[in-house]
Amino acid sequence: MPLIGSIGEHAAIHRLMEYLSGHPALSGGLGDDCAVCPSAHLDWDQVLTSDATIEGVHFETGEVPRRIGNKAAGRVLSDIAAMGAAPQWVVVNAVVAATLPMECLEGIYEGMAVACHRFGAVIVGGDLTEGKSLEMHLFATGMLPHGTACLRSGARPGDVIMVTGPLGGSRAGKHLDFIPRVYEGGFLRETGQVSAMMDISDGLATDMRHMLEQSGVGAVLGQRQLEAVGGPESALFDGEDFELLFTVPERHAGALQSAWNSRFPEPLFTLGSMVAEPGVLMIEAEGQRQVLTGRAYMHFGNE
Amino acid sequence: MPLIGSIGEHAAIHRLMEYLSGHPALSGGLGDDCAVCPSAHLDWDQVLTSDATIEGVHFETGEVPRRIGNKAAGRVLSDIAAMGAAPQWVVVNAVVAATLPMECLEGIYEGMAVACHRFGAVIVGGDLTEGKSLEMHLFATGMLPHGTACLRSGARPGDVIMVTGPLGGSRAGKHLDFIPRVYEGGFLRETGQVSAMMDISDGLATDMRHMLEQSGVGAVLGQRQLEAVGGPESALFDGEDFELLFTVPERHAGALQSAWNSRFPEPLFTLGSMVAEPGVLMIEAEGQRQVLTGRAYMHFGNE
Repeated sequence: MPLIGSIGEHAAIHRLMEYLSGHPALSGGLGDDCAVCPSAHLDWDQVLTSDATIEGVHFETGEVPRRIGNKAAGRVLSDIAAMGAAPQWVVVNAVVAATLPMECLEGIYEGMAVACHRFGAVIVGGDLTEGKSLEMHLFATGMLPHGTACLRSGARPGDVIMVTGPLGGSRAGKHLDFIPRVYEGGFLRETGQVSAMMDISDGLATDMRHMLEQSGVGAVLGQRQLEAVGGPESALFDGEDFELLFTVPERHAGALQSAWNSRFPEPLFTLGSMVAEPGVLMIEAEGQRQVLTGRAYMHFGNE
Repeated sequence: MPLIGSIGEHAAIHRLMEYLSGHPALSGGLGDDCAVCPSAHLDWDQVLTSDATIEGVHFETGEVPRRIGNKAAGRVLSDIAAMGAAPQWVVVNAVVAATLPMECLEGIYEGMAVACHRFGAVIVGGDLTEGKSLEMHLFATGMLPHGTACLRSGARPGDVIMVTGPLGGSRAGKHLDFIPRVYEGGFLRETGQVSAMMDISDGLATDMRHMLEQSGVGAVLGQRQLEAVGGPESALFDGEDFELLFTVPERHAGALQSAWNSRFPEPLFTLGSMVAEPGVLMIEAEGQRQVLTGRAYMHFGNE
């Protein structure tokens, strides 16, 4: 009987997905940032997502409550942004020790409420249970026009890979104070040119592989582009950037970038392009391509 | 700085509700079993709810995985039933120790999937995190015609108080194996005669007080009726019955009961009626009414 620790989270979730399928009304989203569900109105889809923010895993004991709340809400809002949807309703399951000061929990809720309010999302309910460590489990819904959700599975060979901001350095506090890319995600969806999109939570290397798996393609990232976006090491492995990673067919990349620049003050970063080899993640430096396996880029970089 | 343990769950949630209000599109449901949100289609409302099912709190360590899953799903489905809604989408946040056998987690998911499937609900996503104890946080949505949700706040003096099944004895296993009253809740909503409804999770005494608080009325429960429904002690204080507690204006009670009997094999139980005194819960025996304070009924019963 294999233990979860030996299977790993990714494989465990994959096995659990067996229990998540099988309904004809589901328009997609399994294995994506959000579940895409048809709403009662045929012209709109509703997206649903959930994330846990747990003491000792996602924040340290004694962290400022408002920052915990900002992160807890930001994680689900970022998932919704990654579909190109507008966030709508949020439900919160809190697990707290009886010894937690009430003001601490209120500070967390204030952080969540502020983060939600920024994007028109509303906390509408939840549950409070006593437990050993402090945990915030957030569920959120969002809306978008039917059939327009930006999935992870639409990337094609030749597509340009872009990201909405610099990567790396999340440990310095960004992972607590980030503002999810909700407006950016909606803008990108509305261009109609985005072939695949997701948010970066586990780090570019890991999340890129998820997109490759879903899309059945490979990717080549440029060493120079990785330097420009924050440095290869940090960009690939730090994680918790909560920027949007997306792809766009090469012929539309220029127009999309121009439209972006007329709307947002900060630039898009180009990282590379998709290739046909399924699941293969490569780094290109001075015309040479090398496959990135696990964190093997470290050795590659040090050669 | 008051500690949560000294404030108590009910008061703590009440304080947190400050962060849950303030959106004009919300059609109600704060402090109710579900949040009632308008859907994209004006003719339908969507209800949202969440519940935690935690090792050592809601089930014992070593419990049969399928029973844990049945309870985890049943808790949110029961909330949706309590609005009179049809369950639709379910999202699951699981917290598990790395040492948990994968088959155990799969058994829990199987239990959840079976419980959901029975009522057409579908698990569409979620999150998996490593933690100390085993926790299942479920989020669920449901649908019902606009403006028809059965809230806790609609009970009026004179209304008859009814319950969908016998109460008490949850410790004997019922709290793990129960089937949520989804069909019954939908049926009761469709009669158009139910003035207030909720599910019994904390025990009749506690949950009745929640309904009284929301409706601004009092209640008189009959000693003989409590005997018939499972015995006063068990019915009032055991909890985790997951039956539906509802009220109906006296002039409609007979017709509703007849309609029920032609649809369901098991009888409705009448418990008493609502009175004008706000928040007062009374027990009536041999024409004498006595106020129930806390668990003081025990002394009352032993006099």
